[in-house]
Amino acid sequence: MAPQDDQPIDAAIDSEAQRKPISTIVIFIAMHTEALPLVNRFQLKEEHDSLFPKGVPWVRYHGIYKDLHIYIVQPGKDPALGVDSVGTVSASLVTYATIQALKPDLIINAGTAGGFKAKGAGIGDVFLASEVAFHDRRIPIPVFDLYGVGLRQAFSASNILKELNLKLGKLSTGDSLDMSPQDEASITANDATVKDMEGAAVAYVAELLKVPAIFLKAVTDIVDGDKPTAEEFLQNLAAVTAALDETVAKTIDFISGKCLLEL
Amino acid sequence: MAPQDDQPIDAAIDSEAQRKPISTIVIFIAMHTEALPLVNRFQLKEEHDSLFPKGVPWVRYHGIYKDLHIYIVQPGKDPALGVDSVGTVSASLVTYATIQALKPDLIINAGTAGGFKAKGAGIGDVFLASEVAFHDRRIPIPVFDLYGVGLRQAFSASNILKELNLKLGKLSTGDSLDMSPQDEASITANDATVKDMEGAAVAYVAELLKVPAIFLKAVTDIVDGDKPTAEEFLQNLAAVTAALDETVAKTIDFISGKCLLEL
Repeated sequence: MAPQDDQPIDAAIDSEAQRKPISTIVIFIAMHTEALPLVNRFQLKEEHDSLFPKGVPWVRYHGIYKDLHIYIVQPGKDPALGVDSVGTVSASLVTYATIQALKPDLIINAGTAGGFKAKGAGIGDVFLASEVAFHDRRIPIPVFDLYGVGLRQAFSASNILKELNLKLGKLSTGDSLDMSPQDEASITANDATVKDMEGAAVAYVAELLKVPAIFLKAVTDIVDGDKPTAEEFLQNLAAVTAALDETVAKTIDFISGKCLLEL
Repeated sequence: MAPQDDQPIDAAIDSEAQRKPISTIVIFIAMHTEALPLVNRFQLKEEHDSLFPKGVPWVRYHGIYKDLHIYIVQPGKDPALGVDSVGTVSASLVTYATIQALKPDLIINAGTAGGFKAKGAGIGDVFLASEVAFHDRRIPIPVFDLYGVGLRQAFSASNILKELNLKLGKLSTGDSLDMSPQDEASITANDATVKDMEGAAVAYVAELLKVPAIFLKAVTDIVDGDKPTAEEFLQNLAAVTAALDETVAKTIDFISGKCLLEL
């Protein structure tokens, strides 16, 4: 069997779909603070219909901008604890339910991330991910080990990269905000420049359901720096979210009127 | 806000539902080897309809046994790599899609697990989980830390515990087969006797969609022993799966003709 990175998701999407104008975009954002500027900028309205099952905290905003239906979906607040439902389990569920309900042409996973200065990341940089993988699923049995890493190519958006002058880097995903020595070894093996808590799960579901996905990650904290991650993350969250908002808005403008092949 | 363990799932299920005879049971099993003896025993047939979306590898078996509709669902083989799609992301997706499609009265997550001899576990023991939590979601920000741990009570099945003479223990879930020092510290904090790769994700989705869930975990390897986990796991998988099969079969027999309140 071929390893998954031999078959980028681009190849799984039929060429007809790649040539028709993009009309529906889903932007998956894990934290409300990250989503709010975009909701306001595109004047999206929250939808409360029965598209998602009763009882889930998932939040969906919708609006029309130029020729595009734009949806922003968030996993929402944990019903018992009231914090954003970050991480891979919620991200995969929301991505799955959203694709089933909305059949988008493209998914954008936008969010904040930790960056490695040794790989060229600085606070406020916005990266487009070339590929995504997990760094906290260690299964030391042949083939299961590759399954655990779950390496996937992001949809190749070379024109977005060039037009918006973004940095390109590999993204590594895990459910912890901190980084254990084992995580670090896996992140190094993944050759990652940025580290988040959702990307590889979104990529997994997008590939399963054959929807192209791109990943825009803005650096809130330097993982290989000298400041504690949680502190640096909270300190930079608002400012970096503004940089992310700018980039996503420009990406949407660039996508308008184009087909997948032109991204 | 109250921590989640203050509100066991039993309380979220209305009392009328708890008094009506159980008619539909979903057994979620991560690995094909674990599922096969039960599929044969209950003479379940694989269903190939459109209940799950096109392209997903998920497998569903169905049959009628006494007064019960029994479904066994598995995440199936990874399309690119051909190994069972173990872990929390697949488990959460399959549990979600299955609940949406089948509206079961009860979910049983049955599978193999690592056990801690210091907490009384031996090879081949089958545990009923009293509660489940994650051990690889470290988010050192107040309240987010509790969200990461994701402690949940299993549905209390004290009569099953007594009747089948099972051992009771806490279950801790993570996406790695091995155990890093950080995982170990979290497992200790979770006071866990058994360690698996799906339970807490199944519990999360079951609670979200208000379906009671119980967890039957058979010990294939001793985590705090002297044998390498992967080797011990593969060595004991077939024999321990037989013990698990026996226990699930007795559980189904016990459930037949009863309501949730009687479990």
